[in-house]
Amino acid sequence: MQLLWKEIRRNPLLWLLVFVPAVIIGEKTKPDAHVLLFVLSVLAIVPLAALLSHATESVAAKTGDAVGGLLNATLGNLTELVIALTALRAGQYMLVKASMAGVIVTNTLFMLGASFLLGGLKHHTQEYNRAGARFQASLLFLATVALLIPSAVSQVDQGSFKQSLSLGLSVLLIATYAMSMIFSLKTHKAFFGSEESGHHGETPWPMGLALPTLAVVTVLVALTSEVFVASVQEAAHAFGMTNAFVGFIVVALVGGAAEMASAFSGARKNRLDLSVGIALGSATQIALFVAPVLVLLSYVLGPTPMDLQFWPGAVVMIFIAAMTAALVTTSGKSAWFVGVLLLMVYLIFAMTLYMLPPRVAS
Amino acid sequence: MQLLWKEIRRNPLLWLLVFVPAVIIGEKTKPDAHVLLFVLSVLAIVPLAALLSHATESVAAKTGDAVGGLLNATLGNLTELVIALTALRAGQYMLVKASMAGVIVTNTLFMLGASFLLGGLKHHTQEYNRAGARFQASLLFLATVALLIPSAVSQVDQGSFKQSLSLGLSVLLIATYAMSMIFSLKTHKAFFGSEESGHHGETPWPMGLALPTLAVVTVLVALTSEVFVASVQEAAHAFGMTNAFVGFIVVALVGGAAEMASAFSGARKNRLDLSVGIALGSATQIALFVAPVLVLLSYVLGPTPMDLQFWPGAVVMIFIAAMTAALVTTSGKSAWFVGVLLLMVYLIFAMTLYMLPPRVAS
Amino acid sequence: MQLLWKEIRRNPLLWLLVFVPAVIIGEKTKPDAHVLLFVLSVLAIVPLAALLSHATESVAAKTGDAVGGLLNATLGNLTELVIALTALRAGQYMLVKASMAGVIVTNTLFMLGASFLLGGLKHHTQEYNRAGARFQASLLFLATVALLIPSAVSQVDQGSFKQSLSLGLSVLLIATYAMSMIFSLKTHKAFFGSEESGHHGETPWPMGLALPTLAVVTVLVALTSEVFVASVQEAAHAFGMTNAFVGFIVVALVGGAAEMASAFSGARKNRLDLSVGIALGSATQIALFVAPVLVLLSYVLGPTPMDLQFWPGAVVMIFIAAMTAALVTTSGKSAWFVGVLLLMVYLIFAMTLYMLPPRVAS
Repeated sequence: MQLLWKEIRRNPLLWLLVFVPAVIIGEKTKPDAHVLLFVLSVLAIVPLAALLSHATESVAAKTGDAVGGLLNATLGNLTELVIALTALRAGQYMLVKASMAGVIVTNTLFMLGASFLLGGLKHHTQEYNRAGARFQASLLFLATVALLIPSAVSQVDQGSFKQSLSLGLSVLLIATYAMSMIFSLKTHKAFFGSEESGHHGETPWPMGLALPTLAVVTVLVALTSEVFVASVQEAAHAFGMTNAFVGFIVVALVGGAAEMASAFSGARKNRLDLSVGIALGSATQIALFVAPVLVLLSYVLGPTPMDLQFWPGAVVMIFIAAMTAALVTTSGKSAWFVGVLLLMVYLIFAMTLYMLPPRVAS
Repeated sequence: MQLLWKEIRRNPLLWLLVFVPAVIIGEKTKPDAHVLLFVLSVLAIVPLAALLSHATESVAAKTGDAVGGLLNATLGNLTELVIALTALRAGQYMLVKASMAGVIVTNTLFMLGASFLLGGLKHHTQEYNRAGARFQASLLFLATVALLIPSAVSQVDQGSFKQSLSLGLSVLLIATYAMSMIFSLKTHKAFFGSEESGHHGETPWPMGLALPTLAVVTVLVALTSEVFVASVQEAAHAFGMTNAFVGFIVVALVGGAAEMASAFSGARKNRLDLSVGIALGSATQIALFVAPVLVLLSYVLGPTPMDLQFWPGAVVMIFIAAMTAALVTTSGKSAWFVGVLLLMVYLIFAMTLYMLPPRVAS
Repeated sequence: MQLLWKEIRRNPLLWLLVFVPAVIIGEKTKPDAHVLLFVLSVLAIVPLAALLSHATESVAAKTGDAVGGLLNATLGNLTELVIALTALRAGQYMLVKASMAGVIVTNTLFMLGASFLLGGLKHHTQEYNRAGARFQASLLFLATVALLIPSAVSQVDQGSFKQSLSLGLSVLLIATYAMSMIFSLKTHKAFFGSEESGHHGETPWPMGLALPTLAVVTVLVALTSEVFVASVQEAAHAFGMTNAFVGFIVVALVGGAAEMASAFSGARKNRLDLSVGIALGSATQIALFVAPVLVLLSYVLGPTPMDLQFWPGAVVMIFIAAMTAALVTTSGKSAWFVGVLLLMVYLIFAMTLYMLPPRVAS
């Protein structure tokens, strides 16, 4: 507990934890102040995500390599998963899908691009493990194909076809993800040597702190997410943002704030493998694990089953993000302008979504 | 003749030759037993394709490099060509196009992927001639562009435009194929050194055996194909398969069984250049030579001219297959998971086609 | 003046200057002879473009590296810019956009392809600076994304959305172009060492000749372009060409004739960096600078604002051109067949556009 307190004093991001009780009080006293609740919940989720990420890594660091890798890989996007589960239970499938697509695109373009730019402004050129980056880019490409093919092959909108295909594709994606972990953590571990994906450069907590933190914070994220999901759309309209922009950009930036802090600090310290690992690893985890798991869980938790068919514009953006990642990572070298290129692609997406007339992206 | 007998005793695949007379008898006595005839014809085509491939290579090996390469390149997909010609004469253009597209996709994804997987399960990492693989991938990309552009540029369905454009594009593709052979067999032969595409690791037959075998087996393939083409669709419905699935997956696997045996055995023996050469070489041959030749032949043999415009879903699949091949072969290295990735893309295609509601893919 | 005269005697291309007065006389005496005026204006623009390019480079060579690079980068496509401005003032936005798209595709595929082919026929294999080529290919890819996303994301045709988005994207593209110049001319100049993009192998003129030539020739190009733009469509119909073919192919070849001469001669002299630099540099300059500048200028000069939304077929072609460039330049090596591949993609485009039924591409 003392350690947690020290951590909070050291890391200004965690001072935002004060907004967690604020959200809970706010929801009780002013349940209709959507804009206020939205802002409070965003400010509360950011530090909770940071704590969650630190706790997960601490548990992973203690349990040995294979189990640790597994834990990290399944709990690494716990914040996004909890937000998505809350939206899923509320039957807001549009928001679930937009946020999944948004996290993939934001991690691939914004998190990677800003890492390259921030690192490049300090160091003339930087190098990173090409094999690892290409591996992640290929996984992302595969996931894109799975999202793309059903709508490319069939123009018809036959519900039952779409539903059973989504189920089958989800199983395929999860199986691929499982095999990718055997490959990268077991049979060909040496290839991914310098990536250090398990340990993001922070000192791990003892289990006595990590496990309770993991439990308590997950519950808090769940409570806060509920407020967030309930208020996000009303608030968006108040700010003049489209639904698509909120789902794609705002949710992804909020959920990934903690990871971004790690990725950017890694890039500044010339440890670009860390940044690339967090950015692309997180994107592939969403695409190959979290999204298909949500499809499966929708059978149990949601009002109706959710399919894997995304809005065509989202599929195009994921496709372009995957291609950009593949293009950029072939050389294994980076300079500031590579970051600019990635950020520009992201800006093009964000600008288009922001200006989109309402009701297009549904 | 004795040599042929020895070969048959040595190779269990050839024992299936017993089904060749069975097909011919079956067709005379039970012309309406479509499912039976379909199964028999599949079982008969597989060993005939193996014999045809061995005979072609033996002739090629005897006639010297340039002519041999030419022979191999034109007769290498003789089985697929004969099946397609039979379907062409029957006016079944949907089946012709689906099988062309299917062979390209199956060779690029399934044959290459299974080779990488089988090789990778035995050897930790494998290397192959990157220049050769990239060359084939580029040719495949070019063919994709030729299939893609007409429908991308023009939404209108003007028959005469489509028809004359298909004719022009077919001539362009065949010319490119001819120049690619001059490049790889003549002016820049050294680049493709270790590929050994001519000789698939079997001892060549003497001409006295190879030439008659070539002639007799071609006739037998033609006879069997006729039964196959006539029965395939009725049988598909009986099995609950869509037309698209049959044309894409079943025909491609049947026609390519013999080549697959060679490719897989090459990969197990750590001769991956052989596998890559067979898989991608065969795919580009179909795309740049067999398909456009069929368009030209349709003017002579078919009831009406056939165009080169494929069903949009098929074009997307060929495009993705070409991109996957380009992505995967940039490094010139392989491990088991690369095979899994290719196979997963193929599985996504197969699953989508299998679940497709009828009448979509026509 | 004497130097100019010497230059004209030395370079047969400049003998075509005799057609400049011919165009002006022709327009006064026979304003309705569209075909004649079209042919005369084409013949007049080609030598003017050559003079313009030489004058620009001479000024650039004198003003020192940074300013010179800037000058070259902004005036390098002056001919295309003047033609486009003439069409813009006439409100012919279809022609403006078709010619922008055409110049990008023609430079990327035809100019680069013919350079590779001509160089490869003389030299067995050629090498060039991979970093520079990949940098240009990435910029081209980014521009493609900006053209692609608005129509991919929104099917609706809401004028105001399209217009304000085009404005925003134009600013983004120009900003990226400016940063790309800082990167390649300043912070990471060493990467692009052997490219020599400033000086195209000709001896620079003294300022006393270069500056007046720049001024006079720009006026002459403007006068001739007016005749060209006014006559091109009538002439096209007389020749049986579609509007799309004229805008895409004819305008691009006419405007780029002088640059092509430099690129081809560089390739023959085994200075492939020069050819790659001209071809891809010119394509990215059009995509990231000239086209967005025209959108901004349309608010001042045109009858109504022009947007950045291209005809879907044009976007697909630019996308394929960018992908082909990225695919081909990964190795940094070239042989004659690489040129054939690029030219074949271009031929597929040209053939499709030539055969297109009228009224599709509008």
